[in-house]
Amino acid sequence: MTATRSVGIVTAQRARFTEPLLLRSGGVLPAYELVYETYGTLNASGSNAVLVCHALSGSHHVAGVYADQPKSTGWWDNLVGPGKPLDTNKFFVVGVNNLGGCFGSTGPMSHNPATDRPWGADFPFVTVEDWVDSHARLADQLGIQSWAAVLGGSLGGMQALAWTLRYPERVRHGMVIAAAPTLSTENIAFNEVARQAILTDPEFHGGNYYAHGVVPARGLRLARMLGHITYLSDDAMAEKFGRKLRHGEHKYHFDVEYEIESYLRYQGDKFAGFFDANTYLLTTKALDYFDPALDFEGDLCASLARAKAKFFLASFSTDWRFAPARSREIVYALLHNKREVSYVEIDSSAGHDSFLLDNPHYHAAMRAYFQNIEV
Amino acid sequence: MTATRSVGIVTAQRARFTEPLLLRSGGVLPAYELVYETYGTLNASGSNAVLVCHALSGSHHVAGVYADQPKSTGWWDNLVGPGKPLDTNKFFVVGVNNLGGCFGSTGPMSHNPATDRPWGADFPFVTVEDWVDSHARLADQLGIQSWAAVLGGSLGGMQALAWTLRYPERVRHGMVIAAAPTLSTENIAFNEVARQAILTDPEFHGGNYYAHGVVPARGLRLARMLGHITYLSDDAMAEKFGRKLRHGEHKYHFDVEYEIESYLRYQGDKFAGFFDANTYLLTTKALDYFDPALDFEGDLCASLARAKAKFFLASFSTDWRFAPARSREIVYALLHNKREVSYVEIDSSAGHDSFLLDNPHYHAAMRAYFQNIEV
Repeated sequence: MTATRSVGIVTAQRARFTEPLLLRSGGVLPAYELVYETYGTLNASGSNAVLVCHALSGSHHVAGVYADQPKSTGWWDNLVGPGKPLDTNKFFVVGVNNLGGCFGSTGPMSHNPATDRPWGADFPFVTVEDWVDSHARLADQLGIQSWAAVLGGSLGGMQALAWTLRYPERVRHGMVIAAAPTLSTENIAFNEVARQAILTDPEFHGGNYYAHGVVPARGLRLARMLGHITYLSDDAMAEKFGRKLRHGEHKYHFDVEYEIESYLRYQGDKFAGFFDANTYLLTTKALDYFDPALDFEGDLCASLARAKAKFFLASFSTDWRFAPARSREIVYALLHNKREVSYVEIDSSAGHDSFLLDNPHYHAAMRAYFQNIEV
Repeated sequence: MTATRSVGIVTAQRARFTEPLLLRSGGVLPAYELVYETYGTLNASGSNAVLVCHALSGSHHVAGVYADQPKSTGWWDNLVGPGKPLDTNKFFVVGVNNLGGCFGSTGPMSHNPATDRPWGADFPFVTVEDWVDSHARLADQLGIQSWAAVLGGSLGGMQALAWTLRYPERVRHGMVIAAAPTLSTENIAFNEVARQAILTDPEFHGGNYYAHGVVPARGLRLARMLGHITYLSDDAMAEKFGRKLRHGEHKYHFDVEYEIESYLRYQGDKFAGFFDANTYLLTTKALDYFDPALDFEGDLCASLARAKAKFFLASFSTDWRFAPARSREIVYALLHNKREVSYVEIDSSAGHDSFLLDNPHYHAAMRAYFQNIEV
């Protein structure tokens, strides 16, 4: 087996687009910037490019570390690098921060030239399809006519699927991990509670909190605490925290009694310290809206007929956010269209978060699939 | 089959207790009142009394209606009444509001004689066992030496179980519906998010919001929205709401788009309008703390050895809050102790809320069990 290593020190780059982007909501972004990173080398024919799409809280920083920030490892570093399943000795890998994001691409925190203030609540709603359109323009700038693969987990998997539908000639392999063809009612319900936590935070100020020098940290913290419950499985939480008491006995107060409380508060506080609330709102709405079958009277088979790519899908046994059955809906619809599909259901106790972990069976399946992609 | 009818117009009663109640938390309630209702007639030997324990948002108002309030039907009216499964022609049924509640029994909204203000944040933590102790004193006052049955669903089921352990000689049948021997890590996690929503609401004022003439409605609303997701099943939500759009198309705003959002907001607003936030906090803590095996090194079998009652347990296939597997833990522990146990797993799409509905198989099982209870 090849020794694997990190892609090492990486630097984000920035692309500017001055042609207005027409959005599905009817809105228009007159101009925008995308921040992105690349790993590996684009070959002469441009045939070895892979796009990695990020999920709710992710970014363009997929692999490697930033200089002088040893803890800044990319969110999918275990997958991407020399000798890793997505091998940068073979592939040229691109990560890009989605529009509406808070890590450098144009979003609610960015300057709105029309008002000379941050966009805030005026930032238009963006959809998965809008992101794909903006990524296509980035591909144009980078000289990538067709991606060897577009992949992502969760919301990133929805983008990979949308790529195969919106630009069927420009994706050779769609890799859809821990995703679903739509959010379930329960998924929307959880998103709605998270949004209401932010929208009703007195420091939200209708989305224009930047001007007040505050952030709706309470709401964002609650949203993240709730999110974390849905990323983990009941089993994973039971294994890791069980009913472990912080002080060995009941203290009868509202401070931390059970270790799980401490974990959730810590995750919530950390997230509220760096993530933008407007981005959170917009991203949960993009999730809710995603529904490739909507224009096909709910017929997923009909909607996927456009795709020309080959597909790889993976789901995880204890993922109750996007359960294996939801991946199978996509698999069956693709098979119905006689597409070539590889599908693996991975036994994992880690719930939805499994897609970020280096489960050996999962990574072995990814490695094999990438090895068989011709460039 | 007997015709069933309502118990009709009912009136709450009030019992006062002046002997201090020593609480598990180490606190003491110097004196307290319990508000309760009764249906049917206590027989001469006092052998036909049944105690109904309520869950998080329930009350003593189990059956019937209040005069001039036609919408005030009791929360388990479909179960309790003449000819109903818990037949008030045979049984004398008692419902009681738990201590710490907000429907009339002494709780955070009550006057604290020590400070001449509402108890608020000073109200002591109460546990399931404390409730059982206070209910035992009510039984004394009512002349009930032993209950024919103590029953409840969810947190009410935990009280029924605790009764059989704390007063084994005073319960002939323990009826534990849609319950669990403890909360799971995930259950505690959801409770913690709900509590943090309330505790961090700027209008919570450390629990003494009464003095400020406000209530932490935002927090309570979020807590209830979240709770509702866990009371329903994914299936039930999908059946009832699916991805139904309020306006038939995406509107790209943060007002209601999907019908599920409207439902959750409505439930949240309604609840925040009548329920007390301190009661909500205390009750979720009582749920977290419940753990009959805690004093038995986690050995549920050993902890249930004290029980002398016969048992009826029921669980519901799509209940993911207290899944059937959790009821089975109790069943196995009781069987290990050679107790007589009837157990039924009911197919129902309605999730945890199933215990409140009149599912015909469930009610038939309850009816049969009550018919076989000798009085």
